[in-house]
Amino acid sequence: MCRWMAYQGDPVYLESLLFEPDHSLIHQSLSARKSEVTVNADGFGLGWYDEREEPGLYHEILPAWSDCNLKSLARHIKSGLFFAHVRASTGTATNRSNCHPFGYKNWLFMHNGQIGDYEALRWHLDRLIPEYLYNERRGATDSEVIFLLMVANGLETDPEDAISKTIKQILVLMDSKNITEPFRFTAVLSNGKELFAVRFSSDEHAPSLYCKAFEKHIVIGSEPLELSGEGWTLIPEGYMARIAGQQYITQPLPHFLTE
Amino acid sequence: MCRWMAYQGDPVYLESLLFEPDHSLIHQSLSARKSEVTVNADGFGLGWYDEREEPGLYHEILPAWSDCNLKSLARHIKSGLFFAHVRASTGTATNRSNCHPFGYKNWLFMHNGQIGDYEALRWHLDRLIPEYLYNERRGATDSEVIFLLMVANGLETDPEDAISKTIKQILVLMDSKNITEPFRFTAVLSNGKELFAVRFSSDEHAPSLYCKAFEKHIVIGSEPLELSGEGWTLIPEGYMARIAGQQYITQPLPHFLTE
Amino acid sequence: MCRWMAYQGDPVYLESLLFEPDHSLIHQSLSARKSEVTVNADGFGLGWYDEREEPGLYHEILPAWSDCNLKSLARHIKSGLFFAHVRASTGTATNRSNCHPFGYKNWLFMHNGQIGDYEALRWHLDRLIPEYLYNERRGATDSEVIFLLMVANGLETDPEDAISKTIKQILVLMDSKNITEPFRFTAVLSNGKELFAVRFSSDEHAPSLYCKAFEKHIVIGSEPLELSGEGWTLIPEGYMARIAGQQYITQPLPHFLTE
Amino acid sequence: MCRWMAYQGDPVYLESLLFEPDHSLIHQSLSARKSEVTVNADGFGLGWYDEREEPGLYHEILPAWSDCNLKSLARHIKSGLFFAHVRASTGTATNRSNCHPFGYKNWLFMHNGQIGDYEALRWHLDRLIPEYLYNERRGATDSEVIFLLMVANGLETDPEDAISKTIKQILVLMDSKNITEPFRFTAVLSNGKELFAVRFSSDEHAPSLYCKAFEKHIVIGSEPLELSGEGWTLIPEGYMARIAGQQYITQPLPHFLTE
Repeated sequence: MCRWMAYQGDPVYLESLLFEPDHSLIHQSLSARKSEVTVNADGFGLGWYDEREEPGLYHEILPAWSDCNLKSLARHIKSGLFFAHVRASTGTATNRSNCHPFGYKNWLFMHNGQIGDYEALRWHLDRLIPEYLYNERRGATDSEVIFLLMVANGLETDPEDAISKTIKQILVLMDSKNITEPFRFTAVLSNGKELFAVRFSSDEHAPSLYCKAFEKHIVIGSEPLELSGEGWTLIPEGYMARIAGQQYITQPLPHFLTE
Repeated sequence: MCRWMAYQGDPVYLESLLFEPDHSLIHQSLSARKSEVTVNADGFGLGWYDEREEPGLYHEILPAWSDCNLKSLARHIKSGLFFAHVRASTGTATNRSNCHPFGYKNWLFMHNGQIGDYEALRWHLDRLIPEYLYNERRGATDSEVIFLLMVANGLETDPEDAISKTIKQILVLMDSKNITEPFRFTAVLSNGKELFAVRFSSDEHAPSLYCKAFEKHIVIGSEPLELSGEGWTLIPEGYMARIAGQQYITQPLPHFLTE
Repeated sequence: MCRWMAYQGDPVYLESLLFEPDHSLIHQSLSARKSEVTVNADGFGLGWYDEREEPGLYHEILPAWSDCNLKSLARHIKSGLFFAHVRASTGTATNRSNCHPFGYKNWLFMHNGQIGDYEALRWHLDRLIPEYLYNERRGATDSEVIFLLMVANGLETDPEDAISKTIKQILVLMDSKNITEPFRFTAVLSNGKELFAVRFSSDEHAPSLYCKAFEKHIVIGSEPLELSGEGWTLIPEGYMARIAGQQYITQPLPHFLTE
Repeated sequence: MCRWMAYQGDPVYLESLLFEPDHSLIHQSLSARKSEVTVNADGFGLGWYDEREEPGLYHEILPAWSDCNLKSLARHIKSGLFFAHVRASTGTATNRSNCHPFGYKNWLFMHNGQIGDYEALRWHLDRLIPEYLYNERRGATDSEVIFLLMVANGLETDPEDAISKTIKQILVLMDSKNITEPFRFTAVLSNGKELFAVRFSSDEHAPSLYCKAFEKHIVIGSEPLELSGEGWTLIPEGYMARIAGQQYITQPLPHFLTE
């Protein structure tokens, strides 16, 4: 399982979230608490918004804790909306093309979870990517194909609908192939203005998703950034959260996904 | 353009071919003579046969000349049939999944050239890969998809026929999409016993392919390994070479490709 | 703390030791049992002897479990005497120059432990390296400087004496600087014919050192390679082991070190 | 020979200097014009000043042209004073610890050239580094030791004097060891406010150093960033340049260095 966090609020140096909290993502990558794997050392990535329309991206295959570039970048890059992800591979290679977050135009996406028996579905999934998007397929992960399907399903015009449609599309495919392993999916997306997070699983074991509203910012992530966990809300399974400015609202996923 | 060499003969340490000749592949990777690009620093790879059925593989994204592991491996690995490749990317990312040689079971493949306007064809090409082979698609290069199509077209049973069929298949696709950029393709394959080399182009500018029979071995490559070039034969465009033991025979590609 | 293993016996493919046992070094690198840290992901290395006088060396900064090259090399390299090491940095950078095993002529060295307050001693330690050896100093670790001091202290002519002298030399320096943090040192060396292992600490908390004689080979390492631990002997603190052929003999370190 | 450039002026995105000019540093790294080597692919680095006192640093061992992170960072990082360097190793390993620019507190340093017969002098040079600075010695290059000697010689209080003293110190050492290979040194330093550049050689073949004042910024580098070379001034050998705000002044190095 991977781990990730996303920040929205007043512009801050990335290090204040990535390194300083007592259960920051970099600390998490070294030791496990609430998650199922012990270490996230199969690459990591950053995505951040600034004055440019499209976000900055940084991907590296070293463990996050041993990358001296990350330390310096996190001390010098300021952002009011950024993503960070530490990867524990579920099978595909450790290379930069397989690192989250994935970017498309002004959009960022990152993810924890996996499509059950992905090996058996990859050929089918890739064929669902429309031609005009196919050159965006740079790696071999299930995460990247999910993101491209969301774009194909209208992410840019109706994010919540595109997210639901894509989950459904994958469930239908899995069903048609009689895949019994679950589809677990806890993810976040952004267009640079709002965040869209989702916590879903086909087997009621969705990876965790926590959210906390601070005075001037909101953080959402796979785990609380503080060991105490105080003030962190667990988003329920089968829910989406939409974060705009200092507020987040949650709503259940459409019925066609959860019943 | 990439550069490569393949060796068949008495088992030798790889360094005797990779580093020692005055125009060895490592020297070539730093400076250009007969080739069109100045430097091959976008990754490299080795494939070698030994007592195992499937070949050993080593891929690295550093320039070949600065990889200290390569120096040591080439001093300590002995083989009677091996491939080496230095890459100059024609567009896709520098990561290990995009490095030659590519392996499938007991087969190795490497390549110099490119499919004209590959970006416009990638979606179509990937859809030609049959489902049972698709999880072998690890990177995003045209080279890897050509290799997988050869496997799909019967490489294991009739190599020459599979090579010709695949070239034709790509030409037909290019034609149907009105691609006018050429398809240039100089490649070598092996099943661990024989070598199959091919020099083809749709525009009469195929990348070069040289061959030399020494007393106890044969070398084939994109350039002679000696600056003098003495004793090296240029395989003509539109020809294949088959190397078994100490001998090589050349034959023209089928008419349906060259007329 | 790092982890390592060394093998002497009939030539085998490295994978039979590195990957196959249920508590192999690669498994260990992902999860901790008897050791103090949870993960060894700050680079790794191999050293192996074959027909060449000096050993082969392979160093990589990726976690061992995610390096596809290692998988292939371990399937294709056979050796009757080899070293493997997975690193958890105690402070210095993750780069290849800091990865074990270190080589010098026909010698290999690798190590688990650390010199207490190394930062305060590094300037002094480097000044103990004689001029003729100094260009062998490629990284910044305490491990490398210990090895070079052993060479300077006569490793090539009397290994046990050089090991003891070097430990003493470091203890004297630490004492002169009033360093109270311990010097812990569990290491193995080889000249390609014999193995010399040592387990020492200035505070009676030496990192563990296990040994097991199989029918046709001997393995020594920081932990047993089998979860059962059956048949593995813990070498006592303050002891050296010398392994030649199928036998190992242990002896206490000289009095001047242990009293 | 390495190549580098430094910028001072209105804050700009790094890409406007690194990628956009027709003879930008990234273009230079792929092809040679006025320099002596054909390719700079042994690592590269960035250093940039912003609101923090100490500069940001980014070092990478991939060739600059194939690092997708660099492309994104250069599009998203803005600075009014930054350094960029592409390396062609003169012998030491390709790892991040050996990449320029080097940083110390608020200072940056980068360099083109080399100390003649450095291998024979390294032991002596390292011993000149005072104890309090020694843990800043992370790699093995001559460049890094020159920088640390400058710091030891008073860089923070009188940069021009420290530069001259350090050059002299090295010349005296070379003379005492009867080194006849030249000491060539074209370098730039900054404290975040001013730039100090120097062009020196013991044999009248100092690497080139060009400077150009634009309307709102100044660029200094090993080569002009435009193929035309128009408006670029070659700083003479044996001269220093000091750049503050929009102006640069040059002055000869002290007599004790040049006669």
